[in-house]
Amino acid sequence: MPSATSKLELLSQYACAGGTQSFYAHPSETIGLPMRFGVFLPPTAGPGNAVPAILYLAGLTCNEETFFIKAGAQQFAVRHGVALVSPDTSPRGANLPGEATDWDFGVGAGFYLNAIREPWVKHWQMESYLTHELTSLLGENLPIDTSRLGIMGHSMGGHGALTLAYRHPGLFKSLSALAPICAPTMCPWGEKAFTGYLGDDRDLWAEHDACQLILQRHHRGEDVLYPQGILVDQGCKDQFLEVQLHPEKLEQACDLSHQPIQVRRHQNYDHGYYFVQSFISDHVAFHAQTLRA
Amino acid sequence: MPSATSKLELLSQYACAGGTQSFYAHPSETIGLPMRFGVFLPPTAGPGNAVPAILYLAGLTCNEETFFIKAGAQQFAVRHGVALVSPDTSPRGANLPGEATDWDFGVGAGFYLNAIREPWVKHWQMESYLTHELTSLLGENLPIDTSRLGIMGHSMGGHGALTLAYRHPGLFKSLSALAPICAPTMCPWGEKAFTGYLGDDRDLWAEHDACQLILQRHHRGEDVLYPQGILVDQGCKDQFLEVQLHPEKLEQACDLSHQPIQVRRHQNYDHGYYFVQSFISDHVAFHAQTLRA
Repeated sequence: MPSATSKLELLSQYACAGGTQSFYAHPSETIGLPMRFGVFLPPTAGPGNAVPAILYLAGLTCNEETFFIKAGAQQFAVRHGVALVSPDTSPRGANLPGEATDWDFGVGAGFYLNAIREPWVKHWQMESYLTHELTSLLGENLPIDTSRLGIMGHSMGGHGALTLAYRHPGLFKSLSALAPICAPTMCPWGEKAFTGYLGDDRDLWAEHDACQLILQRHHRGEDVLYPQGILVDQGCKDQFLEVQLHPEKLEQACDLSHQPIQVRRHQNYDHGYYFVQSFISDHVAFHAQTLRA
Repeated sequence: MPSATSKLELLSQYACAGGTQSFYAHPSETIGLPMRFGVFLPPTAGPGNAVPAILYLAGLTCNEETFFIKAGAQQFAVRHGVALVSPDTSPRGANLPGEATDWDFGVGAGFYLNAIREPWVKHWQMESYLTHELTSLLGENLPIDTSRLGIMGHSMGGHGALTLAYRHPGLFKSLSALAPICAPTMCPWGEKAFTGYLGDDRDLWAEHDACQLILQRHHRGEDVLYPQGILVDQGCKDQFLEVQLHPEKLEQACDLSHQPIQVRRHQNYDHGYYFVQSFISDHVAFHAQTLRA
């Protein structure tokens, strides 16, 4: 699909569910390293028919393949005529000291923000990569209509979806999350990542906390960003729920800000991809309702 | 679910698609080592309601988790009220010399038969394990109706499904396969496995070749075993199609034997789980039609 002058290198491609599952690599100017992402295109996508797309941000330790292998979302993307895009969760190959020592920081744990601290500042620029470089690449090289993008994510990727949606109003037309980190300034994963990538200034941290971003917008007197609502699913037996996730704080922030939100709590479900595969059909349908309107 | 006297050790359990995904270990008398398997139960299964089950046999290098992680079949099992069971693909932990040297022989490559050659004969008894020990364990410990079992499989597991179905008439009420090895006596994977596990006697090999088993049954004048048909899906871009799989030989054997079979060939699809996830819903529905009749 990409043109001969494209920067995209096709790594692998598979027929799937009537559509096409592809994985690409490309040199990233923003990251300063090669990056990878996966794209699923429904059969309706093609020259002359750019389709809406949902960007899926994955959680800690995942990569650009995880969602496509484990969530089984492709059949629902075909049903609703939307593309699915999933990037990697961090730069890889920087060879910074200790970058792969911890599973919740560094490689596989980019937290979808731009680092400002050494040594991470040079490559860990995931926010700019996703909101500028990747979205442009999608529009220029693939039959994707970047004026109709939705964003969703799981766990760390739920944090990414919520924060990028509020930090870049208008870029994403629909928003949902599965077991998201809702208040990273108040949980161990977020405190570790923000200290490492941003330093000790908690005012800076607040700019990457979904709850605080939603409240800030309200306090500035701006319109509700997603009048059609935000969909969140959360398992009640999620092993990270109490310490790391705090969906009740997201509900409070949305209620105070008159932002409609539906947090669906599911008895017995945990944090993993058996949970994600169980509810992903509702998320694809939820985004499609807005993106295809 | 297993009773206090059960030999089953619950390794992990997940809510999934409205049902329950579990993984068990147990000491296997047949194998002489601990074995593992996965079970997905629809919400309708429980005390007083034993449900039909489909046994899924996985391919080379896979284990008891692969199908449940990658195929996304659980939602369809819920829809049709059937259980799914997937065993491991070989004994593990025997520590035989060279058991893990090759990806297509030994560990992860049991070929669903009883080995007769040293050193494999002691543990590699997958056929007896599956058709006697595992099926008994399922009926005794889980709400599964073992008088209503179907069998399906992928690649090496497709070979397993086809051969076990014909070697144990009546045990499995329905049969299907995805990209199966159809004529293992005539392909490199089968020749290597049969030589290693069975020796050089090709008359013995024939007893584990689906095409020959189907023809033998016909020549004995016995009834067609699956009058409702056998469902097979095959990708036309399958990298193993030409050398290893030979679906046309299975079609010929079935045609000569008046055994109804539908081999669906799918342009563009390859051998992997993007192919499996694309067609698994049809297989679950196909089995349910017989098992729930």
